[in-house]
Amino acid sequence: MVHSTANTVIGVRTPSAAYDVEIGEGLVDDVGARVDALLNGGLRAGRQRAFVVTSAEIERLWGARLEDSFRGLGLGGIHRLLVPAGEEHKRLATVERLAEELAQLGADRDSVLVALGGGVLGDVTGFLAAIYMRGIRYVGVPTTLLAQVDSSLGGKTGVNLAAGKNLAGAFHHPMAVYADTATLATLPTAELRAGLQEAIKSGIIRDRELFEFLETQRDAVLAGSPEALTRVVAASVRVKAEVVNSDEREGGLRMVLNLGHTLGHAIEAATGYRELLHGEAVAWGMIAAVNIAASRRLVTGAEAERMARTIRAYGPMRGFSAAASELVALTAKDKKNRSGTRQFVLPVGIGDATVVKDVTEAELMRAAEDVVNEAKGLGA
Amino acid sequence: MVHSTANTVIGVRTPSAAYDVEIGEGLVDDVGARVDALLNGGLRAGRQRAFVVTSAEIERLWGARLEDSFRGLGLGGIHRLLVPAGEEHKRLATVERLAEELAQLGADRDSVLVALGGGVLGDVTGFLAAIYMRGIRYVGVPTTLLAQVDSSLGGKTGVNLAAGKNLAGAFHHPMAVYADTATLATLPTAELRAGLQEAIKSGIIRDRELFEFLETQRDAVLAGSPEALTRVVAASVRVKAEVVNSDEREGGLRMVLNLGHTLGHAIEAATGYRELLHGEAVAWGMIAAVNIAASRRLVTGAEAERMARTIRAYGPMRGFSAAASELVALTAKDKKNRSGTRQFVLPVGIGDATVVKDVTEAELMRAAEDVVNEAKGLGA
Repeated sequence: MVHSTANTVIGVRTPSAAYDVEIGEGLVDDVGARVDALLNGGLRAGRQRAFVVTSAEIERLWGARLEDSFRGLGLGGIHRLLVPAGEEHKRLATVERLAEELAQLGADRDSVLVALGGGVLGDVTGFLAAIYMRGIRYVGVPTTLLAQVDSSLGGKTGVNLAAGKNLAGAFHHPMAVYADTATLATLPTAELRAGLQEAIKSGIIRDRELFEFLETQRDAVLAGSPEALTRVVAASVRVKAEVVNSDEREGGLRMVLNLGHTLGHAIEAATGYRELLHGEAVAWGMIAAVNIAASRRLVTGAEAERMARTIRAYGPMRGFSAAASELVALTAKDKKNRSGTRQFVLPVGIGDATVVKDVTEAELMRAAEDVVNEAKGLGA
Repeated sequence: MVHSTANTVIGVRTPSAAYDVEIGEGLVDDVGARVDALLNGGLRAGRQRAFVVTSAEIERLWGARLEDSFRGLGLGGIHRLLVPAGEEHKRLATVERLAEELAQLGADRDSVLVALGGGVLGDVTGFLAAIYMRGIRYVGVPTTLLAQVDSSLGGKTGVNLAAGKNLAGAFHHPMAVYADTATLATLPTAELRAGLQEAIKSGIIRDRELFEFLETQRDAVLAGSPEALTRVVAASVRVKAEVVNSDEREGGLRMVLNLGHTLGHAIEAATGYRELLHGEAVAWGMIAAVNIAASRRLVTGAEAERMARTIRAYGPMRGFSAAASELVALTAKDKKNRSGTRQFVLPVGIGDATVVKDVTEAELMRAAEDVVNEAKGLGA
């Protein structure tokens, strides 16, 4: 299939992986041909097999077109493995069941998985690929904004434990990511808005132009304009790719991607991961980080005001109820803490951010209280 | 603690890891100090924590000495996680339970696991380290011959699926391996003999001198002479380290380590992993490989005879019952097969081996029948 609009291609190049993220409308129809080309015709020649992993819901919306793209290679069909939707299925038991299915279907080390779906689906499929026969290849076809701008690239895969989110996992990069912005049209509005918070984050930490685009073009973006969304996705992917390229394993720079996430994760944990979408919790976390940065004069009052206003403009901010002290206690358990030191990302102007280790308990408590008080008054 | 005999240190250097395997008597008493030194004093300073993973049986034999080596650092104690013994516990459910325990105990990304035990324990602990928080460090303290000469180094970790052995796993190297040959004194004779088959394999594929040592010093080795065992372990580790150093991921050379394993795995699978020890099944696989190599005149009749005689001398060969056709069918499912091609390792003289892809079904069937007929007449 030929597309009238040019796709954007952004390269991820790390010490352990080199792959492209392609962004454009209608890409889902070309996944089969593209994957086969990456495999030097291995699918068409029958030397290799591909397996789609998706959820029933996404399968209904996009499965036929994706599978047709493989049938177009002359393949009779493509095996499909289903994962039930929802964070509660992001567990080792799901990965084990899928691995047993792959083994029954005869998948070998040269087989390739295709992850069609949102963030949970991508995390589970990437981890499945990481551990099946000690690692096979996979490609991502993210269908939510959150997955397109964030979770589908960078190589972080994994599942939850009872003890916490993403506590079991692996670094395992895809061999390619195809972000079809047409799939965003079927996304519920709340998910689109929540995903856009990660795009705002990308703007704040590293791309002032992206931030200003989101700030000024809110109506077009929220209306789902394909041009606007493609631009936002491409810019966000570029930010993430640049950061991952220079720091694959979160030794330093990669930490800045966690702006808003320390408190965001605490809010998610305190509310049992049920009340807020991830991006909605991150929005609160970013507000808190902006406030701390303003108190420390890392940003001017005017900058803080612009950032907070833009975050809220992609809301509505969703209410929740939790004690500030509980949130602060939960941040101490953050997976990113090392040897007992709490790390925190703060903006330094718009388009730049830094990681600090000296955010005090009192500072954090004050910021958490502000957020908790505001959230209390809002509807869930 | 000071040792009178010098330890042997062998380096593993791959694109993704650099670590030493130390072999000697009494090493278990020094693990704490050595790990702390590798961590630049992180344990002593309280910045990092270590967790021992072991089985109740090994804990009873060697746990106190290992834990004392950490107490010697001034640490109050060291947390211990127990894995039930037996291949049936080498499953994702066990790994998940251990990961939950680690999380409850507050293990973070800088924590270190110490795998004290045999092959199953090492595979499970290595995989736990590979996926906990997307990867933490671990050291191996292998207590069986099989683990010392083979499974504790090279980075292969994993667990079984219902569909097959080691089908879920990861490449994750330890930060060090301490092989205390004193622990072999408590090993059941059958396990010692089975482990020695892997040492014979190392000799056949790459170290003629090791092979001849095993050939001529059988009585001293089987009597458990510490000098003889240390020499055998060190030479076997050197073979494996050299192979892994030049081919970390089994692209080519590493395959030679699988001499005897293709048919060996098939025998294990056909007998439900209950009748034979791994090394006992590999012994049959090596006999078959030697026979095929002799038919192809890759080795002389005299060489084949010496190899087969030495393999049997470390027996007794253990009987089993399975159909040759079933064994051949099972080799088609081998995890090492790629894109449908069957790979097979054959000796080329004593001390050298090669990987061939053209072993025919008929050749394999003949070799399997010979082995099956001989095994039928033997007691299990």
